[in-house]
Amino acid sequence: MSVNSSHDPIGVAVVGAGYWGPNLVRNFQASTDFRLRWLCDLDVSRAERVLGGYSTVQATKDLAAVLADDTVQAVAIATPAGTHLEVAMSALRAGKHVLVEKPLAASSAQGRALVAEAERRGLSLMCDHTYCYTPAVLRIRELLHNGELGELQYLDSVRINLGLVQRDIDVMWDLAPHDLSILDFILPPGVAPVAVAAHGADRIGAGRACVAYLTLRLNTGAIAHIHVNWLSPVKIRTTIIGGSKRTLVWDDLNPSQRLSIFDRGVDVASTEELGDEQRRDMLVSYRSGDMVAPALTEREALRTMVEEYARSIRSGTPALTDGRSGLRVIAILEAASRSLADGGRLVELVEWTEA
Amino acid sequence: MSVNSSHDPIGVAVVGAGYWGPNLVRNFQASTDFRLRWLCDLDVSRAERVLGGYSTVQATKDLAAVLADDTVQAVAIATPAGTHLEVAMSALRAGKHVLVEKPLAASSAQGRALVAEAERRGLSLMCDHTYCYTPAVLRIRELLHNGELGELQYLDSVRINLGLVQRDIDVMWDLAPHDLSILDFILPPGVAPVAVAAHGADRIGAGRACVAYLTLRLNTGAIAHIHVNWLSPVKIRTTIIGGSKRTLVWDDLNPSQRLSIFDRGVDVASTEELGDEQRRDMLVSYRSGDMVAPALTEREALRTMVEEYARSIRSGTPALTDGRSGLRVIAILEAASRSLADGGRLVELVEWTEA
Amino acid sequence: MSVNSSHDPIGVAVVGAGYWGPNLVRNFQASTDFRLRWLCDLDVSRAERVLGGYSTVQATKDLAAVLADDTVQAVAIATPAGTHLEVAMSALRAGKHVLVEKPLAASSAQGRALVAEAERRGLSLMCDHTYCYTPAVLRIRELLHNGELGELQYLDSVRINLGLVQRDIDVMWDLAPHDLSILDFILPPGVAPVAVAAHGADRIGAGRACVAYLTLRLNTGAIAHIHVNWLSPVKIRTTIIGGSKRTLVWDDLNPSQRLSIFDRGVDVASTEELGDEQRRDMLVSYRSGDMVAPALTEREALRTMVEEYARSIRSGTPALTDGRSGLRVIAILEAASRSLADGGRLVELVEWTEA
Amino acid sequence: MSVNSSHDPIGVAVVGAGYWGPNLVRNFQASTDFRLRWLCDLDVSRAERVLGGYSTVQATKDLAAVLADDTVQAVAIATPAGTHLEVAMSALRAGKHVLVEKPLAASSAQGRALVAEAERRGLSLMCDHTYCYTPAVLRIRELLHNGELGELQYLDSVRINLGLVQRDIDVMWDLAPHDLSILDFILPPGVAPVAVAAHGADRIGAGRACVAYLTLRLNTGAIAHIHVNWLSPVKIRTTIIGGSKRTLVWDDLNPSQRLSIFDRGVDVASTEELGDEQRRDMLVSYRSGDMVAPALTEREALRTMVEEYARSIRSGTPALTDGRSGLRVIAILEAASRSLADGGRLVELVEWTEA
Repeated sequence: MSVNSSHDPIGVAVVGAGYWGPNLVRNFQASTDFRLRWLCDLDVSRAERVLGGYSTVQATKDLAAVLADDTVQAVAIATPAGTHLEVAMSALRAGKHVLVEKPLAASSAQGRALVAEAERRGLSLMCDHTYCYTPAVLRIRELLHNGELGELQYLDSVRINLGLVQRDIDVMWDLAPHDLSILDFILPPGVAPVAVAAHGADRIGAGRACVAYLTLRLNTGAIAHIHVNWLSPVKIRTTIIGGSKRTLVWDDLNPSQRLSIFDRGVDVASTEELGDEQRRDMLVSYRSGDMVAPALTEREALRTMVEEYARSIRSGTPALTDGRSGLRVIAILEAASRSLADGGRLVELVEWTEA
Repeated sequence: MSVNSSHDPIGVAVVGAGYWGPNLVRNFQASTDFRLRWLCDLDVSRAERVLGGYSTVQATKDLAAVLADDTVQAVAIATPAGTHLEVAMSALRAGKHVLVEKPLAASSAQGRALVAEAERRGLSLMCDHTYCYTPAVLRIRELLHNGELGELQYLDSVRINLGLVQRDIDVMWDLAPHDLSILDFILPPGVAPVAVAAHGADRIGAGRACVAYLTLRLNTGAIAHIHVNWLSPVKIRTTIIGGSKRTLVWDDLNPSQRLSIFDRGVDVASTEELGDEQRRDMLVSYRSGDMVAPALTEREALRTMVEEYARSIRSGTPALTDGRSGLRVIAILEAASRSLADGGRLVELVEWTEA
Repeated sequence: MSVNSSHDPIGVAVVGAGYWGPNLVRNFQASTDFRLRWLCDLDVSRAERVLGGYSTVQATKDLAAVLADDTVQAVAIATPAGTHLEVAMSALRAGKHVLVEKPLAASSAQGRALVAEAERRGLSLMCDHTYCYTPAVLRIRELLHNGELGELQYLDSVRINLGLVQRDIDVMWDLAPHDLSILDFILPPGVAPVAVAAHGADRIGAGRACVAYLTLRLNTGAIAHIHVNWLSPVKIRTTIIGGSKRTLVWDDLNPSQRLSIFDRGVDVASTEELGDEQRRDMLVSYRSGDMVAPALTEREALRTMVEEYARSIRSGTPALTDGRSGLRVIAILEAASRSLADGGRLVELVEWTEA
Repeated sequence: MSVNSSHDPIGVAVVGAGYWGPNLVRNFQASTDFRLRWLCDLDVSRAERVLGGYSTVQATKDLAAVLADDTVQAVAIATPAGTHLEVAMSALRAGKHVLVEKPLAASSAQGRALVAEAERRGLSLMCDHTYCYTPAVLRIRELLHNGELGELQYLDSVRINLGLVQRDIDVMWDLAPHDLSILDFILPPGVAPVAVAAHGADRIGAGRACVAYLTLRLNTGAIAHIHVNWLSPVKIRTTIIGGSKRTLVWDDLNPSQRLSIFDRGVDVASTEELGDEQRRDMLVSYRSGDMVAPALTEREALRTMVEEYARSIRSGTPALTDGRSGLRVIAILEAASRSLADGGRLVELVEWTEA
């Protein structure tokens, strides 16, 4: 299938009309880069309900018909993770570019197969790591890449809320992909996790962890910690990123001040030599930097993600969150699952570097 | 030394005029149970500054003179942890009741020696686990003991802020005693930690952890997680306590609503059998409980702690936070330090049950 | 035009494709009570953009054609306030039920003409006072009507944010209709404002007030105060409702705790006779009631409003926010404008009772 | 009485051992500028309780003896407002410098008498407008005086909480002195209120207003609005200061971010000529400035106030919050009381300019 001219919209089909599919439908419809052709779901009436009573988009349960449609150049998959391999592989083999909801696949072996297939065919395989395309995360990435925060020293992320206990996956596979994909996205070149330990609790006898803690070791000595929880009555989505120059706090639930950047000033070498009084003065002085909350545009992340997908397809270059990034996230999840089953043992991430 | 009649104030001396000593001085002076006789510090001018220019209390650097004073029945120690053994042991041997700032001692071996000495002499050895005496923690204890929260399933505590990098101890030994003593205080009889794993990072090359995460396994299968951090530009002191009946959130920085008690309602057995639509309805219904923020009196914790110290001395019964509780806290810290040094390996708490 | 059977959807046209129209389009499309036939705007390309490239709804700039369409039984108007009289009157004269965005009309004289025309023709004239249909306001109304808060004593509402300086109206006419329609909606029968005073400031030389304060006197002696502001860098939407039994706080920006209901306990008669110490105890005791945050469903207000519109049309009974309620809001705004021009003089609301 | 050399502490007596007196006692004791000689209260046992069982300061009920003590050069008065004239006048006539808790006196006539007496005798008469000496207000003053906020356009202050209904004064006289003294303190030279209107409600039949709203007109056309309330279950202390260049928000209950300074950018002249789309873009752009939260030292305001009192006494120059500033605050309160009694009529502030 030839690359589109930059003037023609890219024909796209969405597969999966459950929780996430409708968001893709809405954003592809709003984009001039794409022309939405199909919404495909095994339950065609669900697809029809999502489209509503006023739409010209076709609903179907027949994936083969969608893949046989030459006006479709791209397929966006929002089905359960266990089906990603089959649906995405079919689409790639039909020559379609593929966008997959996180996680990329149910295992890293499956993910590797998809990445290999897409690379062999020269197709764009993109993972819908939506949060990476929020104005906040894009800014954080910029601040880490251009050195304004200094070198990353620790990252602490809390993502907790009441959430439905999933039938097939634990809370780690449900929620941590957000944090892990963000981490993968913002780390400067050369910085990467090398090991992970995980603890969890099956609070309600659900047969899988509903509360989990992941600790990642980076090759720089930095640490990243992630707390995910389905059962918290309070909703918290806060990430603290400690850099050698500044510390950033991202509170995603505070729309008027999502990012706060603090000057840091503690310098342990100097405090070591000081007396008590001097150290107290020191403490005061390192609190004394101003805090800046940069203005961010309010833009739906999915809109930016859809643009990046179009850019990737049109340019023939990998998306910012390409299949390989999806694969790195799965590799960590798999290692974390092994750690969880083994009492929190630190598990090395060989897959990460190989991916 | 004979137990005081309940009418005479108990003569007390404070040892240590650094950060915490002045708070003890102020609260002993405000209590009718005690008569403050001495403030002792190796730097006598520091003791004099703390007392100020209008006080009738004596400042001294001579601990032996204090211990030889028959009008002194009790000694409160607020010196660095490394000196607790020596000062407390001298006081006990002089027949004084002893209150020690947390942690009880620099090691569990030292702590055991103090506990044994106090018990042999029939003296009250109390650990100043101040937070246990806040109205919030007293209420939490009551809610767990009387079953209103149901069985504890998880506890998540975050205690982070900018703080002075300590010369002699890491962040875990500095801050986690608060959380561990609270945990020890609120757990119902028969429930106890059995293992701990810890991860940490020396963010700024201080030679000791400035960020640390502790995961505790309880004998009931519950999990407790503690995040302590000296280097966070935002101050957070929030604990979530998930019970089988209700979930409680304690936000110590929100004076008008420190405790929030949420009805919980997720029941995984029933959701397993349901379809997607039903599960979504389920989700709505389990969010639908009201939240109650109980009224709490505003009372300084140290005032209540001082009352408990007097009660313990006068009744000859252990304080709520006696030496043994201080010992249990140290045992966990030691195990956590071993875990920290060993890549986060889960370390069993034999000391805990023996203590 | 005969009333629909309860089984057939009501044909509806939306007039105005600016800021608010798209929300009406979306909600009418999602409702099984309605069938959206037209989106009408003088700028037909704007209407087409709103409908998007996948819609079967017709865009037009020809209002006469819409009004001549027999399949249209209802018209929803979201055009500038200055055009409400003309568009709504045409629709009523064409026998259509009419929904009008707030404010009902540009003056109470215009509003009275619309109300009279609708009543003469037996058509439903409804004002889209959207906030009245939020779960929070519906609950507040219930709490005031069933006596749980006791008698209303004061209401304080703050609605401030950065907002576009409007070309044709001041901040009072732009934002206060929200608060005034809520007040009208929640007051129990027999309770009504009788006078209003207003102060404002044209902070930026815009030729109209950008900051305004309204004080309303009620026939019960209660007071209501409204602060509206286009130029606040912080967004606040908080209403405090003091009742004789309980006080309610509505913070619309806190989705996890929009409503907080506090027991009140101050009883001035008893405190008068007390000494200082007793009064201090008193203070403590009247703070000591618990706070309850009732669970609210999260439901889009416009969806409930659209249902109420259908109910009104089908039953032939006035909507909860009918034309008369819209008229009462305008009467207050007119009196407030007179007060504003006259140095904050208290202006009596004769129009209110006559309306 | 000769002015002290700058090396000798100033002998001081505190009169009044009720709510505020103990704070003065504590701060005078901590200051090397002063030597506290007496604590005087009609109820001497109350004075003794305040001093506690360890103090060398003398308690007395005999004001005459205090005033006759030559080692006392200054008197700090924390008695009920109705007694300020008598106590302060006696002290001035005895040649003592005088510090008075707010309000300066019970009426402007009384206040003028005190100011005249102090000026005649060359004594420092200072009003303890404590809030003016907080780091936040000192910074706000600096930002308004040096032009960083531009010209003041509006000030909105909310100071609400549960508070004891006072026996002798309404909420306006109890709480608004804080806001009015701050306003007086921060306004640049030449800017002053010229009129005030007030509305209030006696919510609970207390015989005096428990909720009040003050609107002040300034000679520049700016507006200041103050909401004070004894009966709010939520505590709010937020002031918004809109300047022609920047807008500042002071949230006194957020210790980690008391001040937030926002760039503003709306420029109505330019938006007038723009179309809808352009105006929307405009809106985005004027939101797009960063916010800066300047670091503030945490310092007790009373400590700074006590230093300023010493400076005033030693230098023979008026304190920043001298008697005249106290007089200006009373003049506004009196005018506001007249407005309150007269239905919110705007009352001109002749007293202000004469004071």
